[in-house]
Amino acid sequence: MSTITILGAGAMGSALCTPMIDAGWEVRLWGTWLDDHLLDAVKAGKNHPRTNEPLAQGVKLYRSDELEKALDSANVVVMSVASVGVAKVTELALPGIVKADALWLTSKGFCAKEDGEIQLLPDAIRRIAATQGYDQLPPIVAIAGPVKANECAAREPTATIFGCRDGQVSLRYARQARSQTYAIEASDDEVGVEICAPMKNVYAIALGIADGLQEATGVPHHNLKAATFSQAVREMSLLGAALGAKESTAFGLAGVGDLEVTGLSGRNKFYGVRLGRGENPQEALDEMARLEQTVEGVPAAALAQKFVSQKAPNLVEKLPLLQAVVRILDGKVEDVKSVVGQAVLPVKP
Amino acid sequence: MSTITILGAGAMGSALCTPMIDAGWEVRLWGTWLDDHLLDAVKAGKNHPRTNEPLAQGVKLYRSDELEKALDSANVVVMSVASVGVAKVTELALPGIVKADALWLTSKGFCAKEDGEIQLLPDAIRRIAATQGYDQLPPIVAIAGPVKANECAAREPTATIFGCRDGQVSLRYARQARSQTYAIEASDDEVGVEICAPMKNVYAIALGIADGLQEATGVPHHNLKAATFSQAVREMSLLGAALGAKESTAFGLAGVGDLEVTGLSGRNKFYGVRLGRGENPQEALDEMARLEQTVEGVPAAALAQKFVSQKAPNLVEKLPLLQAVVRILDGKVEDVKSVVGQAVLPVKP
Repeated sequence: MSTITILGAGAMGSALCTPMIDAGWEVRLWGTWLDDHLLDAVKAGKNHPRTNEPLAQGVKLYRSDELEKALDSANVVVMSVASVGVAKVTELALPGIVKADALWLTSKGFCAKEDGEIQLLPDAIRRIAATQGYDQLPPIVAIAGPVKANECAAREPTATIFGCRDGQVSLRYARQARSQTYAIEASDDEVGVEICAPMKNVYAIALGIADGLQEATGVPHHNLKAATFSQAVREMSLLGAALGAKESTAFGLAGVGDLEVTGLSGRNKFYGVRLGRGENPQEALDEMARLEQTVEGVPAAALAQKFVSQKAPNLVEKLPLLQAVVRILDGKVEDVKSVVGQAVLPVKP
Repeated sequence: MSTITILGAGAMGSALCTPMIDAGWEVRLWGTWLDDHLLDAVKAGKNHPRTNEPLAQGVKLYRSDELEKALDSANVVVMSVASVGVAKVTELALPGIVKADALWLTSKGFCAKEDGEIQLLPDAIRRIAATQGYDQLPPIVAIAGPVKANECAAREPTATIFGCRDGQVSLRYARQARSQTYAIEASDDEVGVEICAPMKNVYAIALGIADGLQEATGVPHHNLKAATFSQAVREMSLLGAALGAKESTAFGLAGVGDLEVTGLSGRNKFYGVRLGRGENPQEALDEMARLEQTVEGVPAAALAQKFVSQKAPNLVEKLPLLQAVVRILDGKVEDVKSVVGQAVLPVKP
């Protein structure tokens, strides 16, 4: 029996326990110093507070001070913490990670270096490892796709994609981690999978804006929403291709699929609804922060803009929807409908 | 000033009048024998009964017995009747169509020949013309994309795609027909645009099923819906490519965009909701027929299946979601959730 150690006991980390248990793995769930209360709730027999589902039977729980024990002889380590915590947890877990056969990654986002360079998470992890003197990391498997954690935990049908530079590695795990309800597409496109994950949070804000316009006016803005969806997919594809990814990755589960699920619900979409209703971007964000609702797409938009200007400067003009979201978030846009419309409607040829 | 004659005064035909008037065309709207009451309502100063919006100012109306007058010296003729009426209206209008510079086509669907062959509408129109002794038709421009007629009529922001074998023709009209709110992408992929149009109605039924499962159980099925969306796009792309279309057309406005708008509302989606709730397919269809709600995706699914078996038999197994919808519509499926899940979740590699 293979052992998997999941780092981060939030929604996605705890949800991933379900298919891994079902697929016959020994599953260890380690909580960061922010997660101890989540583990306490689970130990007390309650549903997991983030998914509102019971944790899968048989998962071994490790508190924040038990990291070394959690990692001991693990075959696979999964990074499942919020993107802001990836650097810190990587540093702490490296001694265990380098002994594993693979590092999986469900964390999504960009990582800002101290010198201002923006990196995708796998590159950030490799850099941190090198800085710590670890020359060799095991293969990194980027995991994305349309997975709402609570549905995954509840064994609702779920499709995901594993992207690893070594396609044989993602193929192996796509076989070994599949359960009846958790189905995995294997891909060799790490960058494509990884770029879609944070970008779709940015674009989900734009989808929410169309819904908010409907709420504010009573008039559906479905044509605008659909044009927004189409443009978002195009921009994810263009950005991926500029970075060496396959265009097609954005057209599958990692792009189209994940954007669809993110646009159905989630905080990024609901934040966009507030903007479409006419709320002030900062006030809406503050209000959601008071409700303990983090809107990942907001920092991701700013980081994405920097990332594009650093890594693919020629692309800036070809990503008008990203630019529109950034401008709207900056609070300087009076007429969000017009700005989104200009970004997503085809220009006169 | 160029003159455009729109054949069919239903929702889409009447909605298209708005951008064409805005773009400075002389617009004539001809109603079939089924549309006279719609024109009567408009003449009486009411909103158009199908869009619930006023008809654009300045449109000239022609009743069913005024076809010849409507077509006289028209630069562009638009076929906007329901797909079942395309053959008949084509026969009647051919003398005017052949004198025009182009035939645009917003009708969507397949056409069954008497010998059982299923054709895309442009091919059916060409065949009918040849049968009637017309060797030369003007270029056909297939029009699709995420356009809800009522929003188009109301000047809400709308993106669409014009696909013509001669890319210069679609480019010219993408310039000449653009209004402030109606924006057109020009494409040379007639087949790609044309194949997505009816297929998205079929797949919208599948999207509705996920929503219906949520209604029936109280549990969201967003992961399933997103995987369904992704698989639907993949199948439209595969089918297009097998018929000589560009794969990419399905990834843009004609596929991704139109599926998004169709899945947001519309009769195909709502029929799928009924199936997801557990209603019997035939009874649900009868109920909607009583409410005068035609579900285009139902005949399209059967025709699509025949079309694939005739034109791309090797593809049948690669379109599991189409097969699943056909089986479900046949009424022989007990567990729709499981059948959709099997069709859209990646198989174990």
